[in-house]
Amino acid sequence: MTVHKKSSLLDRAFRNLRGVWGKIARTYEDFSEVDLSPDLSGGDRARLIGQMRACLEARGGEVSARSRAAALGQAYLALNDTGHKVFLCVLAEEFDVDHTRVDRAVAGLQEAASKSERELAETELKSALQAPRVTLLTQFNALPEGVKFLVDLRAELISLLGDVPELKGLESDLKTLLTSWFDVGFLDLRQITWNAPAQLLEKLIAYEAVHEIQSWDDLKNRLASDRRCFAFFHPRMPDEPLIFVWVALVRGMADNVQVLLDARAPQEDAEAADTAVFYSISNAQTGLRGIPIGSFLIKRVVDRLTGELNGLKTFATLSPVPGFRAWLDKILTEEGAEQIDAEKGVGRSKAAGVDYPLAAIRRLLARPNWFEDDKASDPLRGPLLRLCARYLIEERRAQGTTLDSVAHFHLRNGARLERLNWLADRSERGITQSAGIMINYVYELDKIDAFHEAYTGRGEVTTSREVDNLLKA
Amino acid sequence: MTVHKKSSLLDRAFRNLRGVWGKIARTYEDFSEVDLSPDLSGGDRARLIGQMRACLEARGGEVSARSRAAALGQAYLALNDTGHKVFLCVLAEEFDVDHTRVDRAVAGLQEAASKSERELAETELKSALQAPRVTLLTQFNALPEGVKFLVDLRAELISLLGDVPELKGLESDLKTLLTSWFDVGFLDLRQITWNAPAQLLEKLIAYEAVHEIQSWDDLKNRLASDRRCFAFFHPRMPDEPLIFVWVALVRGMADNVQVLLDARAPQEDAEAADTAVFYSISNAQTGLRGIPIGSFLIKRVVDRLTGELNGLKTFATLSPVPGFRAWLDKILTEEGAEQIDAEKGVGRSKAAGVDYPLAAIRRLLARPNWFEDDKASDPLRGPLLRLCARYLIEERRAQGTTLDSVAHFHLRNGARLERLNWLADRSERGITQSAGIMINYVYELDKIDAFHEAYTGRGEVTTSREVDNLLKA
Amino acid sequence: MTVHKKSSLLDRAFRNLRGVWGKIARTYEDFSEVDLSPDLSGGDRARLIGQMRACLEARGGEVSARSRAAALGQAYLALNDTGHKVFLCVLAEEFDVDHTRVDRAVAGLQEAASKSERELAETELKSALQAPRVTLLTQFNALPEGVKFLVDLRAELISLLGDVPELKGLESDLKTLLTSWFDVGFLDLRQITWNAPAQLLEKLIAYEAVHEIQSWDDLKNRLASDRRCFAFFHPRMPDEPLIFVWVALVRGMADNVQVLLDARAPQEDAEAADTAVFYSISNAQTGLRGIPIGSFLIKRVVDRLTGELNGLKTFATLSPVPGFRAWLDKILTEEGAEQIDAEKGVGRSKAAGVDYPLAAIRRLLARPNWFEDDKASDPLRGPLLRLCARYLIEERRAQGTTLDSVAHFHLRNGARLERLNWLADRSERGITQSAGIMINYVYELDKIDAFHEAYTGRGEVTTSREVDNLLKA
Amino acid sequence: MTVHKKSSLLDRAFRNLRGVWGKIARTYEDFSEVDLSPDLSGGDRARLIGQMRACLEARGGEVSARSRAAALGQAYLALNDTGHKVFLCVLAEEFDVDHTRVDRAVAGLQEAASKSERELAETELKSALQAPRVTLLTQFNALPEGVKFLVDLRAELISLLGDVPELKGLESDLKTLLTSWFDVGFLDLRQITWNAPAQLLEKLIAYEAVHEIQSWDDLKNRLASDRRCFAFFHPRMPDEPLIFVWVALVRGMADNVQVLLDARAPQEDAEAADTAVFYSISNAQTGLRGIPIGSFLIKRVVDRLTGELNGLKTFATLSPVPGFRAWLDKILTEEGAEQIDAEKGVGRSKAAGVDYPLAAIRRLLARPNWFEDDKASDPLRGPLLRLCARYLIEERRAQGTTLDSVAHFHLRNGARLERLNWLADRSERGITQSAGIMINYVYELDKIDAFHEAYTGRGEVTTSREVDNLLKA
Repeated sequence: MTVHKKSSLLDRAFRNLRGVWGKIARTYEDFSEVDLSPDLSGGDRARLIGQMRACLEARGGEVSARSRAAALGQAYLALNDTGHKVFLCVLAEEFDVDHTRVDRAVAGLQEAASKSERELAETELKSALQAPRVTLLTQFNALPEGVKFLVDLRAELISLLGDVPELKGLESDLKTLLTSWFDVGFLDLRQITWNAPAQLLEKLIAYEAVHEIQSWDDLKNRLASDRRCFAFFHPRMPDEPLIFVWVALVRGMADNVQVLLDARAPQEDAEAADTAVFYSISNAQTGLRGIPIGSFLIKRVVDRLTGELNGLKTFATLSPVPGFRAWLDKILTEEGAEQIDAEKGVGRSKAAGVDYPLAAIRRLLARPNWFEDDKASDPLRGPLLRLCARYLIEERRAQGTTLDSVAHFHLRNGARLERLNWLADRSERGITQSAGIMINYVYELDKIDAFHEAYTGRGEVTTSREVDNLLKA
Repeated sequence: MTVHKKSSLLDRAFRNLRGVWGKIARTYEDFSEVDLSPDLSGGDRARLIGQMRACLEARGGEVSARSRAAALGQAYLALNDTGHKVFLCVLAEEFDVDHTRVDRAVAGLQEAASKSERELAETELKSALQAPRVTLLTQFNALPEGVKFLVDLRAELISLLGDVPELKGLESDLKTLLTSWFDVGFLDLRQITWNAPAQLLEKLIAYEAVHEIQSWDDLKNRLASDRRCFAFFHPRMPDEPLIFVWVALVRGMADNVQVLLDARAPQEDAEAADTAVFYSISNAQTGLRGIPIGSFLIKRVVDRLTGELNGLKTFATLSPVPGFRAWLDKILTEEGAEQIDAEKGVGRSKAAGVDYPLAAIRRLLARPNWFEDDKASDPLRGPLLRLCARYLIEERRAQGTTLDSVAHFHLRNGARLERLNWLADRSERGITQSAGIMINYVYELDKIDAFHEAYTGRGEVTTSREVDNLLKA
Repeated sequence: MTVHKKSSLLDRAFRNLRGVWGKIARTYEDFSEVDLSPDLSGGDRARLIGQMRACLEARGGEVSARSRAAALGQAYLALNDTGHKVFLCVLAEEFDVDHTRVDRAVAGLQEAASKSERELAETELKSALQAPRVTLLTQFNALPEGVKFLVDLRAELISLLGDVPELKGLESDLKTLLTSWFDVGFLDLRQITWNAPAQLLEKLIAYEAVHEIQSWDDLKNRLASDRRCFAFFHPRMPDEPLIFVWVALVRGMADNVQVLLDARAPQEDAEAADTAVFYSISNAQTGLRGIPIGSFLIKRVVDRLTGELNGLKTFATLSPVPGFRAWLDKILTEEGAEQIDAEKGVGRSKAAGVDYPLAAIRRLLARPNWFEDDKASDPLRGPLLRLCARYLIEERRAQGTTLDSVAHFHLRNGARLERLNWLADRSERGITQSAGIMINYVYELDKIDAFHEAYTGRGEVTTSREVDNLLKA
Repeated sequence: MTVHKKSSLLDRAFRNLRGVWGKIARTYEDFSEVDLSPDLSGGDRARLIGQMRACLEARGGEVSARSRAAALGQAYLALNDTGHKVFLCVLAEEFDVDHTRVDRAVAGLQEAASKSERELAETELKSALQAPRVTLLTQFNALPEGVKFLVDLRAELISLLGDVPELKGLESDLKTLLTSWFDVGFLDLRQITWNAPAQLLEKLIAYEAVHEIQSWDDLKNRLASDRRCFAFFHPRMPDEPLIFVWVALVRGMADNVQVLLDARAPQEDAEAADTAVFYSISNAQTGLRGIPIGSFLIKRVVDRLTGELNGLKTFATLSPVPGFRAWLDKILTEEGAEQIDAEKGVGRSKAAGVDYPLAAIRRLLARPNWFEDDKASDPLRGPLLRLCARYLIEERRAQGTTLDSVAHFHLRNGARLERLNWLADRSERGITQSAGIMINYVYELDKIDAFHEAYTGRGEVTTSREVDNLLKA
């Protein structure tokens, strides 16, 4: 199942540009569609700079400048990978902040004698610190699907940053622009049902990042009457979900995702459900990375469901622990693991009445399909749950946030770490990343603020007594 | 006919807030709805500052901060005029740029030793130059009609600037924010017909700024099959036109606005029209002043009409000369007017075969209802048209732009000054402001860029031969 | 305020026909648009019959027949009044039931020997009793706004029946067709707000039959937040209300329509209302006369409002007594009125403590503007209310239904006659028709069936004790 | 892939009934939902009759009657197969035409002395011939999805007719009702794209009757940019296609359906297509059998495509010959087949230069997968195409229509038999039914009427010269 984004976007861009800009666009079509070689070789780099400058100076007026910027955007879509890199580097380097102007403005600021002179100098300094490329980026909004173009552009920049670090400033400018345009106040929360366009549903299949959707039947099952899917949309990208969440309406907090997704299970009565389980959240747009809309999504959905279904008392996730197995392997294989073990108090199995030193864990985990073998998985259950609790709560990054990214996301949102579920995800990914463990984080609306403050302010992870006991064991 | 904007907005705000923010909002309702006195007297100013600070620090998380900002926005709507002023001054003064931080950042910049240090220092300086109030303004977007709220807020700021100049910085920050959010790429061009909601049509009646709409019958007449109305809309203000333009589809360039608006005139066949006359453009939102969308409107409408009606060959305006009569009166009443006359070559009536010195003009214009009296208006025709041509073309502001604001708007857009029409607007406003003269500016799509460049670059006004002759006469 | 229905319909018909029928339609355009004279004089009647026959025989296939029927419909719209009459008479006479075929079928029926022969004979007889014109009427549905065309056609037939009684059969066939197509199951109940298209609202102004709408401001007032307007629509006439009702949400049962419609009165809080007052119902389409949708309207609106506003306890009308004054005048002016008085017990004023014989009533009512003169209206109050109660309850038509049409409508619907309100409508119509009296009929959902049965089955009018007392007084 | 129609309809019915009928419905819920046993055993048949009678008599008023009819409809959905049969038989037998009343009316007719008496008598007779059950059927329209209910009811009746012939009259009454309600003037032609709701697309997969849709990918391929799908919809069944047609936009008339449906084939440019090939038409609603909307569909689509794509010159089908193989087998296996052969001139292979008597055809067709074996299929090509041409053109039913139902459909619509394509459908169905042959029928808009008349009037099949030659060969 593939969604051919780039090429279809290009198609539509070429087709629609006339529609939007009409005659004005036609004037500029020649130079953009004809002139540039796919890799911007030869004199094309210089020609491109010239065209960008013309846009910036708004020669012929702002309307024409927009139209030409749109033509440049089109031209970009027709370039190959090399061309893309050249284009972006031109934006990054030739239209960067003018440092001389900044220095002049700083001097002006320091000479300011009065309050009003100071204000003028600050304004000039602020303006000098704004790279001219921001104007160009803004002008690309004139493309028929300009917002999507810019989001995709940032996705491309992010993927290039490793190789071409000098694009960082451009990427950062684009992030600032998109942060303003994707302010949560502009986003629409929409429920997605089996009545949604196939074109949109197909994207859910393509973008689902946590529990792969196997088929259209699987998708239909996830949209049954006891399930919900919600997504944020931007008014200028009406057919593109930005981020989406899947919810199961159940009785009691779900503890196994395969059971939840079983197509043969009978549908429950949503009206009778007491728990909404958020079992997957996927960002659909790489180009919006770092722009915080996920936390709004969960809470808006909680509010929506509360209004719709009176029976719902608990709002919980069923989440993976994506970093657990990697961390565990590091622990298990580090030189002197047993010592580390001793220091950290990990595997104090005696206290739990069993004796499983790390070596034994290592051995059991090495068995093929250990999770399907009771003789391996039963003894692992206790130690791994305790290790996982420790991983989630005690392992922190330098700045004090939890090492596990999913845990960090929910704790930062004000959730409570409620329960660890053993062998709750037996999919390949579930085993490989989370050793099959899944977590219920619980959202209690009237405690979200307090928990958020506890975590972000004092670094405290709020847990249930059950999880506490795991830690103490 | 009145549109009660403020109160209905308030009503809806109170009603809808729960809908959008649900339980989260309810948590904060008390303090905002109950606590603040309408004029923010007593300790309320300090309390307000505290609440704003809580929003800025995003205590309890970003979602809660948004919700509280929305509650603050609500509170604002419930204040009286004094309260508004206090609220805005708090924003302007207490959440202004931190100058100490700016100075520290400047020092950091000057000490930067490497390129990467320099970049970090510039980033910090840019951040320091951003006033914290911008975050608060952005958070108000969480209000149910947050965008409209901010647009109205800026309208209020603009009206207060004269009295309270210290609001300038706040107003400027808000303008920057709105400029980003009202980028033309986000706006929808929509045709407005008699099939539009009465709620929207009512706003056209209220906002029409050039030729007052007398009644619903008058409005219906302006929406007849040989007329068009187009407006820009923002996706988050779907019921509020931002700017709208009225078009008459006629044969030959219209030369009289009363004839154009006569409800008893038979409807023409739009398919047979060769000319589209833009006879009125009104900005509907004071809060968007200075954000350039007008030039896009005309050209987008030209494109739309071109696609729809093949017969259209000419796109022209029928525009007032709003500054003419004031300028003329100044000329006529200045000491030594006759000398000025001589120097400027104004009233070289002999060349035109008649002899009407300024004194005669003064005398004729002083007659009551001179425009309905052939004996006064006939002799005035030649001299006034020549004076008006001179006013439009030669009278400039310091920076070289034309003195007349309407002329400046169209010339800057790339239009040509085509024709002056005598007694083309006999309404009270038409006589008082423009001495009854109206102008046809013509938009020729393939010359717009050149004319724009001529005017903005070299200060040249492009005119038809007919207008040239007036000037030479 | 006028709604030019016929001509605009014609315009649209001509414009849209190509859209719907495309090339097929074009083939037939010539003969229909060109050939027929406006009054169908000369050989045009015969030509018309020929064309109709071609449609009936579906020459060239059903699709072509439809297209030609549509062209005939167009041709009809282009005829003048004489032409219309000729066209309709052709339909009525030339395409009537074939009586010979009926007789033959009757003979067949009587000869039928077996059950299955009998069934076949009945089928043939039924088919023979169906006039061929019904097929033609159905084919007119192919017109772009075919349903509206047929509704308007019936309106025209109704208006012609007096002069041309031979159209009765055609009108009756059309009624049968429309009864099937306007089955209440097909109708949409829609709330109409100030956000509705002006084009639709304009029709409310034109069609309002009870309390004239004075202006757009008056209309807006009737659509305020404490008011409601609901209408039935047909999916093929989406812009045409079929019947609409106005509701005021108030505290306590309204007793005066001028007070209710006063634009200066403050808006009430709809949430706080305990009573919904249906103060006007208008049929918008004469062509649907006799097709019972009104009773569904009231009950569907009651259900809708019940679901929306929990506070509503009472659903009542504020209705005119349109036949009262005419009946009263007849009573008052009949020869021997005083005797009738005595016999009927009317005006037994002594029982009420005052003595006003019919002569006095006559005299008082003769005073100019008696209703604004306390000296006239105070003494009239008692006697007229009692006479009115008597009129409503005791005066019946031959078949036992009440003489007053409005009373009959609501009683048949299962309402209770609750209260008579003195000087509740001082408009010219109110005084002239109802002597200023208005009635509250109350709808109690769980008693509607019983009251309906009482009235339709046993001829009983259910009344409140208050009204009973009036009768007994 | 299954579409669970009945149960979901039931669900929705139960859920929505309150929405539509509110309190009124609630009054009647008990008796319908509780009382009746699933198979209507015991006294339930009598109780049902009683309830139906109450509806017919409109006890409690028409609104209540509707509500009760809706409850009856609901009850029906909850019955089992036996219950359905009992329910329908009750409708058929207990609410049939009252023959005594008919006889009385006939007597009245025969006694009628005047024209007006005759008219009254005819009206009464017509009314007497209308079975009361029609009123009940109409009242079922009050169900939330009443129209779909009735369409499904007729589908069920059709399936029962073989076993229960006494349902014929009821089925016929329902057909008459649906014919009026599904008049083509009420139907919407809508294009279905990949942007349509999955819920709708899923139905295309389920309902496709000619070339099975294998998967969602296959479906997407059939909705690519060089393909079109159109369907008729009824305004009261907005999510249910009534009949749909698939179109391929190609260059040259397609001659092979597998090639057409090949997902790996590159997409063509629709703008460059000169031919629209209608390669499948499916009726989606058994309950609408015999109600002629198919012929309208093709011509409306032709018109739509003509307006959209200027390049289209030819409109043709690629159709199966579903009855060919069965007919052929009969020919081949009849006693004395060779004689028949000789008489009919079939297999005059010498003229074609080869000698293949029927026996040889029989032998070749008996080979497994003969169509993939050149040694079998090559020799069969000539004889089978000639036999097929003969089958299509010369084999007629008693009433003169062609034996092949698909041929009859298109010829009746005015199409021309253009070309026979050898091994054009190698699917199992294609081989089994049509011996792999597919036909192009061509629609020429300006000849449709003439060809229709030729076929329906004079029984003439219009063919291309190429087909003629096959026949003559």
